[in-house]
Amino acid sequence: MLRTHNCGELRLDQVGSQVTLSGWVQRVRDKGGLIWVDLRDRYGLTQLIFEEGSTDPKLLEKAADLGREFVLQAKGEVIERTSKNPNLPTGEIEIKVTELEVLNPAKLPPFLIEDETDGGEELRMKYRYLDLRRNVIREKLQLRHRMMQETRKYMDSADFIEVETPVLIKSTPEGARDFIVPSRVNQGEFYALPQSPQTFKQLLMVSGFDRYFQIVKCFRDEDLRADRQPEFTQIDCEMSFVDQEDILETFEGLTKHLFRTVRGIELEEVKRMSYANAMKWYGNDKPDLRFGMRFQELNDLMQGKGFGIFDQAEKILGICAVGAGTYTRKQLDALTDWVKRPQIGAKGLVYIKYNEDGTLKSTVGKFYSEDDLKQVAKRFDAQPGDLILILSGDTNPVRKQMSELRLKMGDELGLRDKNVFKPLWVVDFPLLEWDEETGRYHAMHHPFTSPKKEDIPLLDSNPGEVRANAYDLVINGVEIGGGSIRIHDKKTQSTMFKHLGFTSEEANEQFGFLMEAFEYGAPPHGGIAFGFDRLCAIFGGSDSIRDYIAFPKNNSGRDVMIDSPSAIGQEQLDELSIQLKNKK
Amino acid sequence: MLRTHNCGELRLDQVGSQVTLSGWVQRVRDKGGLIWVDLRDRYGLTQLIFEEGSTDPKLLEKAADLGREFVLQAKGEVIERTSKNPNLPTGEIEIKVTELEVLNPAKLPPFLIEDETDGGEELRMKYRYLDLRRNVIREKLQLRHRMMQETRKYMDSADFIEVETPVLIKSTPEGARDFIVPSRVNQGEFYALPQSPQTFKQLLMVSGFDRYFQIVKCFRDEDLRADRQPEFTQIDCEMSFVDQEDILETFEGLTKHLFRTVRGIELEEVKRMSYANAMKWYGNDKPDLRFGMRFQELNDLMQGKGFGIFDQAEKILGICAVGAGTYTRKQLDALTDWVKRPQIGAKGLVYIKYNEDGTLKSTVGKFYSEDDLKQVAKRFDAQPGDLILILSGDTNPVRKQMSELRLKMGDELGLRDKNVFKPLWVVDFPLLEWDEETGRYHAMHHPFTSPKKEDIPLLDSNPGEVRANAYDLVINGVEIGGGSIRIHDKKTQSTMFKHLGFTSEEANEQFGFLMEAFEYGAPPHGGIAFGFDRLCAIFGGSDSIRDYIAFPKNNSGRDVMIDSPSAIGQEQLDELSIQLKNKK
Repeated sequence: MLRTHNCGELRLDQVGSQVTLSGWVQRVRDKGGLIWVDLRDRYGLTQLIFEEGSTDPKLLEKAADLGREFVLQAKGEVIERTSKNPNLPTGEIEIKVTELEVLNPAKLPPFLIEDETDGGEELRMKYRYLDLRRNVIREKLQLRHRMMQETRKYMDSADFIEVETPVLIKSTPEGARDFIVPSRVNQGEFYALPQSPQTFKQLLMVSGFDRYFQIVKCFRDEDLRADRQPEFTQIDCEMSFVDQEDILETFEGLTKHLFRTVRGIELEEVKRMSYANAMKWYGNDKPDLRFGMRFQELNDLMQGKGFGIFDQAEKILGICAVGAGTYTRKQLDALTDWVKRPQIGAKGLVYIKYNEDGTLKSTVGKFYSEDDLKQVAKRFDAQPGDLILILSGDTNPVRKQMSELRLKMGDELGLRDKNVFKPLWVVDFPLLEWDEETGRYHAMHHPFTSPKKEDIPLLDSNPGEVRANAYDLVINGVEIGGGSIRIHDKKTQSTMFKHLGFTSEEANEQFGFLMEAFEYGAPPHGGIAFGFDRLCAIFGGSDSIRDYIAFPKNNSGRDVMIDSPSAIGQEQLDELSIQLKNKK
Repeated sequence: MLRTHNCGELRLDQVGSQVTLSGWVQRVRDKGGLIWVDLRDRYGLTQLIFEEGSTDPKLLEKAADLGREFVLQAKGEVIERTSKNPNLPTGEIEIKVTELEVLNPAKLPPFLIEDETDGGEELRMKYRYLDLRRNVIREKLQLRHRMMQETRKYMDSADFIEVETPVLIKSTPEGARDFIVPSRVNQGEFYALPQSPQTFKQLLMVSGFDRYFQIVKCFRDEDLRADRQPEFTQIDCEMSFVDQEDILETFEGLTKHLFRTVRGIELEEVKRMSYANAMKWYGNDKPDLRFGMRFQELNDLMQGKGFGIFDQAEKILGICAVGAGTYTRKQLDALTDWVKRPQIGAKGLVYIKYNEDGTLKSTVGKFYSEDDLKQVAKRFDAQPGDLILILSGDTNPVRKQMSELRLKMGDELGLRDKNVFKPLWVVDFPLLEWDEETGRYHAMHHPFTSPKKEDIPLLDSNPGEVRANAYDLVINGVEIGGGSIRIHDKKTQSTMFKHLGFTSEEANEQFGFLMEAFEYGAPPHGGIAFGFDRLCAIFGGSDSIRDYIAFPKNNSGRDVMIDSPSAIGQEQLDELSIQLKNKK
């Protein structure tokens, strides 16, 4: 090793030792005749000192010439600092350097290698290898590393077998767009990159692997939104001979294990909520439970009082923002403007302010008596100083709008602490989802998700009401993952295909291969997949997954650092027997 | 869970317990009125019993109808067997079944689900999900799982950070052929799949990650030979501020850790051998050290005695096969034929038999006196009963031929035990390799491999003699992995490019991006990559990597199970703005 110690480990105990350190120059302070150099590596920062008189003049000169980010090897004695730095683990010592070798000089980096940098997003992405030198970024990837190791430890100890499924697979017409890979050996044919290992993990259950997991790259050629990546990582799992409860318990265990080992947090039991209640109470299938503000339906209290908008509304929903009664007129106007933005789409916002003196004040006061308003306040158990916010309209849109407003109020009132974690299982998802465009039902999860046994009779009479053995894990309003118990018997599967509008020819064409495998003795099975990038971001208290990916792509799917994708040579295309289409 | 116990865990202790098991029918034996069913899962096999008189007749009937590979749930009492099976961990008990549910029937599998199957390779690959049910196959993938977990444990404990590098990267003209992925968003442009994360891991060193590892899929669009896969898995690593010794120690540590934890074998110290000696002694840069038979050069002893073939040969090489002096004339003729096959290409084979009576007998006896032959025998320290085999010719081809012959003799004499492991570091590889076709030197490893400091002056005078800081790990004659200390300074890199015949424009075009990164403070660094599929095969005592891959592709790069690659729709091609080239 070109060092005896790293830059983070020396303490007073080592005073008097001869050591060799290697690392990068974080900072040079030259006081004329006295030079300090902060030497940095992944493990920490150690101060080097060069002093006129006791340091060889040539060495002093060499030190004076050092620039930021030069790579050094420094030998010397550990000495006690006269002026200690309590904020630095190595702050009690410094190295009196006797030998110095510049292992590599460095050009001035295009932005500051500091926690707070002057580099914009684009510049930092172009020089991602320099951005990764910043502690704040490196720590995110170290967290990711920890998450991976602990996930595997847990899964291994629970008898799951990690199996690598293939990356070069086959394109399927269902779902999102595949990335495809032309085959040279089989000209005119293509591989596809997997959107998930779904088929393979179900096959592994058919194979009797019993418990499978994998931390695996998946690929989707989607039009990218912020915080979507064309390649992303999943914790992918499947289990045999289980019912839903077994899967929830196992992955609740994983979640707790990760919080305990990675964040030092003991989670309480993970709450469960039906999809129906999540929609009713939070207008959202991934409610943020770090705060209350549960919706109340107010139709019974607020209709028939002469306020036409409410009278005509399918649903009147309210939330109570505790302590927001002090909002000024200006703040309330801003809220109203906010809900009226096209992204939210509300027509207006009604509020009831519960004044500190016990009186109630509302924008629609002329339609409602003080007593009417008291009844509303009572429904929320509101107290003086609270603010009730009310929206109305058709059920689905008003739920959506109110959900957004609730989250905004949570933000404004500081109720969404990044260091508080409230995981939740949302269960009993609908099996089918009506698609306006095609005028038929689609599988909400996928066509192999099993319906709840007791709901099967509804398939004919009221398909939209059939609940599935499907579940999502939500943490702080973010969907971390989801899964389902699969259909494993032919009869139920045929019924499902029928209700999804597949002819048996179509079903066979699209899923025939898996269906055939199922005929050779498929066990009852189910599984789940967690979005690993997002899970890491949540653990790190960040909204952005990009920070948790070493070399991310931008919103156009480009890696600006290596400049990819890029044009390739004609010879390569010829070998693959493909050509670019002439632009029309 | 649809079981209280798995099929491998019940013992005499549990006799009297009510249990529920789930699994697959391995075998039904119906003695009329007495039916035994072997129920199998990943964990083992348990015998179910149904007996006329004590078993409900309907249940008995149900049991009689069971077929191979049916999926069952069986409830009943654990009872002691009258006739125990000592070969089965559960062989002392059986289950007297009181309830039986067929969870799924099964079609008759196309081959036997047994350790010894009647299914050929092709059939087993088409129904790989059934092949994976066989214990012998599943155990191989469980070994692979164990290898992965233990590799990560070791690397994590040695402070390596696991970083996932991107799969959608950029095509580079160097090296093997890339698989490419057309971009839809950036039409006319392509991603490429990584042949290895080489660039990224070096960038991570520039980023100060200090120690990186990853178990990662890599891709090469090669014409497939037996035992090559278009996608394969690597243990990929890189370290900063190290010299070669540090890397060898770290990965010798990994190798020992894996043997200890996965195979229960304590390895001795891993031997080291220079490339030059490996070639001289074994004619091969990956010698199998499970047995001796080191080459001896015999030019001094056997030239000038009138045997023209030897007199004209550049090199006369011999090996001594201990105990093979009993080979019959027929066996020796067969050996001679074998070395004369075009795959080996020798012109003939000379032998000296050391008879039990102390006399020596040779095919070239008329040119050499008994004393001449004794001298040769002495060089090998040969004993009565041994056989000396001699080949001659130009150095490189005769080394290659003798290497093949040595391995064959090792096989014939049973010296290549699959349960004996002799790892070896081959070090000091040549930096450059002469390429006859282009008439210039190529980098043997890659253009960033550093030359040994003391050999740099030879770059001008005798480039072929320059040794690199490059090393391979070899186990039992199989190359497991290799790596090098990289060049990290601009001056050495320029010298290298010059000697590889790159103009600075060419160097810039092909490697400019990494070269630029190196200017921002690259630490001295080096790394290694292990072929994980092959490592698993070696650990499992197998020659074939395919058995250690859950869903392998065949020699044409096809997955015959999912039938991939395959044609895709015109619409998909249109979206990507590519088209198939018309066949000419």
